[in-house]
Amino acid sequence: MITIAIDAMGGDAGLKATIPGALNALDNHHDLKLILVGIEDQVRASLAQFKNIHHERIEIQNATEVVAMDELPSQALRSKKDSSMRVAINLVKEGRAAACVSSGNTGALMATSRFVLKMIPGIDRPAIIYGIPGVNPQTKKSTLSQMLDLGANIECSAQHLFEFALMGSVRASFVNHIAKPRVALLNIGEEEMKGLDNIKDAAKMLSDCPAINYIGFVEGNDLFWDKADVIVCDGFIGNIALKTMEGTAKFISSVVKQSFTSSVVSKLQGILSFMVLRNIKSRLDVRQYNGASLLGLKGIVIKSHGGADSISFASAIEAAMKEVREDLPTKIHAQIEQILGPENHEDPN
Amino acid sequence: MITIAIDAMGGDAGLKATIPGALNALDNHHDLKLILVGIEDQVRASLAQFKNIHHERIEIQNATEVVAMDELPSQALRSKKDSSMRVAINLVKEGRAAACVSSGNTGALMATSRFVLKMIPGIDRPAIIYGIPGVNPQTKKSTLSQMLDLGANIECSAQHLFEFALMGSVRASFVNHIAKPRVALLNIGEEEMKGLDNIKDAAKMLSDCPAINYIGFVEGNDLFWDKADVIVCDGFIGNIALKTMEGTAKFISSVVKQSFTSSVVSKLQGILSFMVLRNIKSRLDVRQYNGASLLGLKGIVIKSHGGADSISFASAIEAAMKEVREDLPTKIHAQIEQILGPENHEDPN
Repeated sequence: MITIAIDAMGGDAGLKATIPGALNALDNHHDLKLILVGIEDQVRASLAQFKNIHHERIEIQNATEVVAMDELPSQALRSKKDSSMRVAINLVKEGRAAACVSSGNTGALMATSRFVLKMIPGIDRPAIIYGIPGVNPQTKKSTLSQMLDLGANIECSAQHLFEFALMGSVRASFVNHIAKPRVALLNIGEEEMKGLDNIKDAAKMLSDCPAINYIGFVEGNDLFWDKADVIVCDGFIGNIALKTMEGTAKFISSVVKQSFTSSVVSKLQGILSFMVLRNIKSRLDVRQYNGASLLGLKGIVIKSHGGADSISFASAIEAAMKEVREDLPTKIHAQIEQILGPENHEDPN
Repeated sequence: MITIAIDAMGGDAGLKATIPGALNALDNHHDLKLILVGIEDQVRASLAQFKNIHHERIEIQNATEVVAMDELPSQALRSKKDSSMRVAINLVKEGRAAACVSSGNTGALMATSRFVLKMIPGIDRPAIIYGIPGVNPQTKKSTLSQMLDLGANIECSAQHLFEFALMGSVRASFVNHIAKPRVALLNIGEEEMKGLDNIKDAAKMLSDCPAINYIGFVEGNDLFWDKADVIVCDGFIGNIALKTMEGTAKFISSVVKQSFTSSVVSKLQGILSFMVLRNIKSRLDVRQYNGASLLGLKGIVIKSHGGADSISFASAIEAAMKEVREDLPTKIHAQIEQILGPENHEDPN
């Protein structure tokens, strides 16, 4: 039985997405138990709207406060000590839950998780990792490269990038079941100015590390063609790249939609338009891949998209279950110890 | 009459693209004269394949060397003093041509232009500016935001970003005929970590500058929705964003293509597929917007895409003509003087 703490108040839709999402996950996984954390009356009222709510595998944990989506992380950390987010993370710390899932404020989730759970010894900073959909140009099969950091750290040293690469590689091995994950650094193409110093230094460190299958640099236009299993960059660049992808996809969808509606054989094309857009959506939509992992913490914390609906929130819970089954923080710690040596046995936290 | 120097040997296709592209531009613009710079025998042989070659408006300038597409910029600058690229830029320096167009090696073009033409006083570094296609969400009309720097400078101070904003704004005013161009800085969204220090400092400088209509930060997913006329970032981030856009667009096109070919009513869908892909292509293809400007130099240099064909090479020549008509370097210089004061009358170069 896997127990997961749910920040039931988090996200743009709050309980309207988290409660049906939680019930959905319980339907599909009979080895799952959930602790729903939130304002108790509201959680109970929301649950009361559903039949078949798996009473025996639901627990409700009261929390009197809610972190707003636009609240400053430092303020949430200081002043909202009884928020649904904080209490859910506390449950992981106390060992009552094996992981926590939240659609809430990313910065606050990151800051609170780091404060409560602490870092794995040998890892300096947490990183956000997420799957980028792509296609293999030969086999035409769908692929999913893992990219990190997507916004937790805006400035990173070579050592930080090295740690991200290591964590991403371990996660791809165990969670995505890839034997020797191909690890690449995101960079630009011009030869002589090939990258910032931290990237060049990280490339050297990765080349020298036999535990990591480092394959070199990839560029922004390489992200979708199965060139690497793990793509490493700092959080500023990762965030720009991820949001540019989202923007481009949305822009193209709007162009496709317009191109259909503006043409002549409109009825038939309307049907086909629907098919094409549905296909694009299913290939690019974040919902099915929902659940970014906050890597490097001593516990498992999954960030669900703020705009997640019930279906995608259930996906995020499943992402948490996968990491719990593999006991990912322990495996990252073991890999760190193997590479960096026994001095990391001592916990600096 | 506008005279433009053409690096006839540059680009992946070399003379096969530049010569028909040049003739195409001469067909369309009777006030255009071109100096074709390259290995004379080869240029003449290539021209001989066409009828109606506008003898009276073509001049051939011999150059014995060619800069390779993958050559190190420093090496090209040092050792290829009689390259078609270098000689074409020299023609601008000597006043024989009003601008130079090249599909050649970007780094070499940048380094050579800077060395030969020098910078406008008050501008420290050149920047690559390019149009990003988009759509206005209300009017549904196509838009084109200008984005810089797209790869010339991988690390930039706040002052550099300020200079890029200023040059971009002047260019949007005169070349794109926008009265008060909306200028934005590309950044990430999380409040507390809102950007790197250089971006935050540049934001302050831009807010304090009455000559620039600064509107604040935009994110990667804002690039396509007519939120700004000029989008400013450092060259590393700009390059990552541009290539991520290209990659995403190519990926989606492949998904659309696959979704059509894999479905049942294939013949009809094949026709529609063609229509949709053509529409996407025409809205996103770089060809029609070909011609990135190297801003900040004392002369006009236009970088055409390395893979440019004859049609897109002609577009790059037209981009050069627009800047020549507006005498862009002089207008940028005037704006700099107005903002920074008369000390910039003295030319540091």
